[in-house]
Amino acid sequence: MNEIKVHEVGLRDGLQIEKQVVPLEKKIAWVEGLLAAGIDMIQLGSFVNPEKVPQMADTDKLFAHFSQDGKKPAGVVLSGLVLNEKGLERGMACGVDMFCMGVSASDTHSRKNTGKGSDEAVGQIIAMAQAAMKAQKRIQVSIQSAFGCGFEGPIPAEQVLAIVDKYLAAGIRNISLADTAGHAYPPQVESLYAEILKRDPGVELACHFHNTYGLGLANGYAALRTGVKYFESALGGLGGCPFTKVAAGNVCSEDLVHSLQRQGLATTIDLDKLLETARDLGGFFGRELPGFILKAGSIVHFKKA
Amino acid sequence: MNEIKVHEVGLRDGLQIEKQVVPLEKKIAWVEGLLAAGIDMIQLGSFVNPEKVPQMADTDKLFAHFSQDGKKPAGVVLSGLVLNEKGLERGMACGVDMFCMGVSASDTHSRKNTGKGSDEAVGQIIAMAQAAMKAQKRIQVSIQSAFGCGFEGPIPAEQVLAIVDKYLAAGIRNISLADTAGHAYPPQVESLYAEILKRDPGVELACHFHNTYGLGLANGYAALRTGVKYFESALGGLGGCPFTKVAAGNVCSEDLVHSLQRQGLATTIDLDKLLETARDLGGFFGRELPGFILKAGSIVHFKKA
Repeated sequence: MNEIKVHEVGLRDGLQIEKQVVPLEKKIAWVEGLLAAGIDMIQLGSFVNPEKVPQMADTDKLFAHFSQDGKKPAGVVLSGLVLNEKGLERGMACGVDMFCMGVSASDTHSRKNTGKGSDEAVGQIIAMAQAAMKAQKRIQVSIQSAFGCGFEGPIPAEQVLAIVDKYLAAGIRNISLADTAGHAYPPQVESLYAEILKRDPGVELACHFHNTYGLGLANGYAALRTGVKYFESALGGLGGCPFTKVAAGNVCSEDLVHSLQRQGLATTIDLDKLLETARDLGGFFGRELPGFILKAGSIVHFKKA
Repeated sequence: MNEIKVHEVGLRDGLQIEKQVVPLEKKIAWVEGLLAAGIDMIQLGSFVNPEKVPQMADTDKLFAHFSQDGKKPAGVVLSGLVLNEKGLERGMACGVDMFCMGVSASDTHSRKNTGKGSDEAVGQIIAMAQAAMKAQKRIQVSIQSAFGCGFEGPIPAEQVLAIVDKYLAAGIRNISLADTAGHAYPPQVESLYAEILKRDPGVELACHFHNTYGLGLANGYAALRTGVKYFESALGGLGGCPFTKVAAGNVCSEDLVHSLQRQGLATTIDLDKLLETARDLGGFFGRELPGFILKAGSIVHFKKA
């Protein structure tokens, strides 16, 4: 059951709304903390215009650092988010293990985020995914605002599944649904993932929830029940999307890991070490981060009844 | 699907750790806010020694007030917690619609809370429940620490089910499982309720979760899936048990209602009015209450996709 993987995205999605730029040395220590805790997938950053997003200006350097011999345990996957061909080229050059890319199912969100409508963006993303696969790179392709949009409100499942169909037709088998605004609710999560598995039972599914309305862990449980294996979260519950109306942080990694470990999953992760790194980050950002386990302490030592 | 009922327990469980005694007039306004929002079950307080628990000293007066003609809509159930025969007598005299009572599945918690071990307490509670039923009163009998205990750690399911068996044998058909310390996790919730329904598919099930580890709504979803109909929560997420080691507040009523309404349930509740009362309470207690919807605002107007 340790095939459930936690994919830490705090260094990318968690920093989008932080004003305080995190220096490279701090990012390296942060990743080292995650590696010491046994997190097996870590998103180091995105490949965007460094002038527009100073938080991500050192993404190439961070990958180059951890691509050196002995800097990360074997089997750990370092992922990077790419938005266009230029980003893909940069990522190829600096040692990205897995390329993440995606489109928004909400046309409004897509245009605000990328300047392109959903349809146009899908074609471009598929071409990029195929180029990465051709280069023998692992990929994960996402659909943002898959469960609702701060601008448009509900996103019909058909609209999401139409994108899934295009991904599947293009040979893409790693799909993440992202709840960018936090609108997802558990039965919707179960139903949407089940529809994808009906189309292709072999597809590898990931989930990415935000905790705007407090349902992050509930949605995570719904995803787990349906067969999702990859859980994206951010240490300390960092995050929030600048291109949507109301969005709270990502699901908090410590809370997610605690919840999984109570169920006997993700047991290779050292929760105490994870909490150390989260506390250190809270100190760095100078505020109390929203995690529950950070406040209450862990009870995984109790194991299961 | 509006057979799902939200049972507001903030006036009882929410006040256990508050130092600031809430005056009767404030409690009346609080209940009026809940009634205006369409909450259909409200726990007004407990019948305990007023000298030991000043917060609950006016419970009889509060019931007497709302027992007057025209003070509450027809069909609304006002419940009161009773701990002993004396409390039951007081409740009979002042218009309690439903008597709530219970024992802890954790012997340590039971002794700290009541001075009696679980076994001894079960016999007394059953006798009280039978007396209330004989008087044609609605009852609900609970098992506290049903999913784990801050002192003892895991509570084996068999221990909880042994109490359930005694309740069922005594003709009790309304059972609430209370996660006093917040240790529950979703598959455990599903499994424990399913075991009860195996014993008697006609039993009416209630749940009472605390959000210590952030899993309150996830556990609520698990309970809902299994067939639980009564959901206990506290406005603003007030609460925390003084007789256990680490325990955060109850599941927040606004967050619970929001989560249910996203699924098309509990739609007779007016969430905006509920939020008004929660904001007012936050003002009264002079601090930010932990609810998510209080911060992010509601999206139930979006309805389902």
